[in-house]
Amino acid sequence: MLQSIQWKENCLLLLNQTLLPNKVEYIECRDYQVVAEAIRRLEVRGAPAIGVAAAFGIVLGAKEFSNSQYFWTSLLKVAEELGQTRPTAVNLFWAIERMMSVASRYDKNSDIADVILALEHEAIAIAAEDLDMNSKIAHFGAELFNIPVSVLTHCNAGALATAGLGTALGVVRQAFSEGNITRVFADETRPLLQGARLTAWELMQDNIPVTIITDNMTGWVMKKNMVQAVIVGADRITLNGDVANKIGTYGVAVLAKEHNIPFYVAAPVSTFDFTMESGLNIPIEERDATEVTHFAGIRTAPEGIEVFNPAFDVTPSSLITAIITEYGVLKGPYNEAIAELQQKIKGV
Amino acid sequence: MLQSIQWKENCLLLLNQTLLPNKVEYIECRDYQVVAEAIRRLEVRGAPAIGVAAAFGIVLGAKEFSNSQYFWTSLLKVAEELGQTRPTAVNLFWAIERMMSVASRYDKNSDIADVILALEHEAIAIAAEDLDMNSKIAHFGAELFNIPVSVLTHCNAGALATAGLGTALGVVRQAFSEGNITRVFADETRPLLQGARLTAWELMQDNIPVTIITDNMTGWVMKKNMVQAVIVGADRITLNGDVANKIGTYGVAVLAKEHNIPFYVAAPVSTFDFTMESGLNIPIEERDATEVTHFAGIRTAPEGIEVFNPAFDVTPSSLITAIITEYGVLKGPYNEAIAELQQKIKGV
Repeated sequence: MLQSIQWKENCLLLLNQTLLPNKVEYIECRDYQVVAEAIRRLEVRGAPAIGVAAAFGIVLGAKEFSNSQYFWTSLLKVAEELGQTRPTAVNLFWAIERMMSVASRYDKNSDIADVILALEHEAIAIAAEDLDMNSKIAHFGAELFNIPVSVLTHCNAGALATAGLGTALGVVRQAFSEGNITRVFADETRPLLQGARLTAWELMQDNIPVTIITDNMTGWVMKKNMVQAVIVGADRITLNGDVANKIGTYGVAVLAKEHNIPFYVAAPVSTFDFTMESGLNIPIEERDATEVTHFAGIRTAPEGIEVFNPAFDVTPSSLITAIITEYGVLKGPYNEAIAELQQKIKGV
Repeated sequence: MLQSIQWKENCLLLLNQTLLPNKVEYIECRDYQVVAEAIRRLEVRGAPAIGVAAAFGIVLGAKEFSNSQYFWTSLLKVAEELGQTRPTAVNLFWAIERMMSVASRYDKNSDIADVILALEHEAIAIAAEDLDMNSKIAHFGAELFNIPVSVLTHCNAGALATAGLGTALGVVRQAFSEGNITRVFADETRPLLQGARLTAWELMQDNIPVTIITDNMTGWVMKKNMVQAVIVGADRITLNGDVANKIGTYGVAVLAKEHNIPFYVAAPVSTFDFTMESGLNIPIEERDATEVTHFAGIRTAPEGIEVFNPAFDVTPSSLITAIITEYGVLKGPYNEAIAELQQKIKGV
């Protein structure tokens, strides 16, 4: 199976997603700054994957400063720097907090080697849980598919976005293996083409039929009844069930509603922000204008043109048919379903 | 003013729109095949513009065969070839038919020089009417704007798509000059980026504030109340008011409805297909997969990937607030409004 993130003792290997599908190349991260840079440049991307990468980034940072008399302040700085790479996906902060809470069990008198070992175990656990979570989401999600249908997905919530099978694409893989998904339509997902480059590539590797379309074809594909369901991932889910995800997701959700097509979101509990009431408060990352004005170094828009380039949007829960988690499938009213989910997590 | 189409006696100059915004270069068409090829390759594009170009293509064809004993059959072949360049925009067929109906006033005993002169006059008349039509549409359309708003447009229905000010962008230019449009959001319009390349370029030339976005940002821009109206062109309008236009238009119309934003279509009467009941019957051109899989010669999707690449979609009249023509503004029920329009045209 495709492994986008691999841990080899003192080195984190990250499949460089900016080079796909033309080149399969791993970045060797031997210090935390390389990890932070890889997250910032989207060389590693996808909410669960950046959580796992950041966890190992903290391990690398801890190792770098293991002999420093400023170990503890350095570790805080590492966590802070990793946390500043991207603002929207909550899994990043979730993973960093989880790592720092392990560190906080130790104090200034502890043996630093013990701290580092505990951090490494925690990061490995986060990656292993991600794998397990993917598999559970895949199975819960596949139960929503009972007859053969074509599905549409946006961006990449696949193996490349996680340490495992993927969230949305994990469900696709499972439902395909059960004969209930016959084809995937992948929005190319401008500006960075995660759909055309990544989703198409990873589904082709698994011999799952996939057709790419430009983002503006989604409505027409639905109108022509070429897809019967939508499934996407998420970068942050608030208490009322609002979902931040790759820019364009909101438009797809409105179109799905117009065509009476179910709109599913697949995401692990680490994507839920239990401190935030609604999607209105989610900070939306705006990225560089050149992502829109250039392509592969070639200018495609006039010099000096103004650009609006939000990387995410927020889909209100009213447009979401179900949210698939590793604890089961949530349906509205989401305030209640998510409160119950929180109880379940605490109970485990 | 920008002139995308110029007629210089035996030569049709077409601004090569595939090279914009990086290069301003005219194609010198001295025979009809070059015109046909320019239409096919979208070097000249936009429904009204390809009508005008095809009209001059017929003049060039007639001149080429002026000394041939097979003049009349050759002229038919020229018309047929030009008509086969693109299937969706009806202005192409409208212009060709109008030219051939002028030719049909002559017979085998006529002086060919007279035929050619009549054809040239007709083509010049079509171009002049286009200019006049643009100006009328601009004024009728601007009456719909009474307070300063930002508008969104898709693809390019501007000076580059016509012989004059443009249809949708003609309205924008007029309403801007009256202080009622403050900014234009231009969807980049994949796969060929007519929004980012052409609309952005021509509005910047006129110092009209313009912001480009990727197609999948439209919903979010509406949700954030950054635009208060949509205005687009059309490639074919049927008797019930359904509108074929650049792929993605349908999705924009659905999103406009969801956000209670008026959705306007600006098009000359040559865009109306008075022989077709509804949009269901409009042939939709599908273009080469490489438009989606490649960008500026660089492959951006995996080899062997399947692609769906319709160049147009159909927006049902129920989503259209008004259709702006050179005869005035049409509102629903469109069956009646378009029947009245037909009477008006006949009456003039």
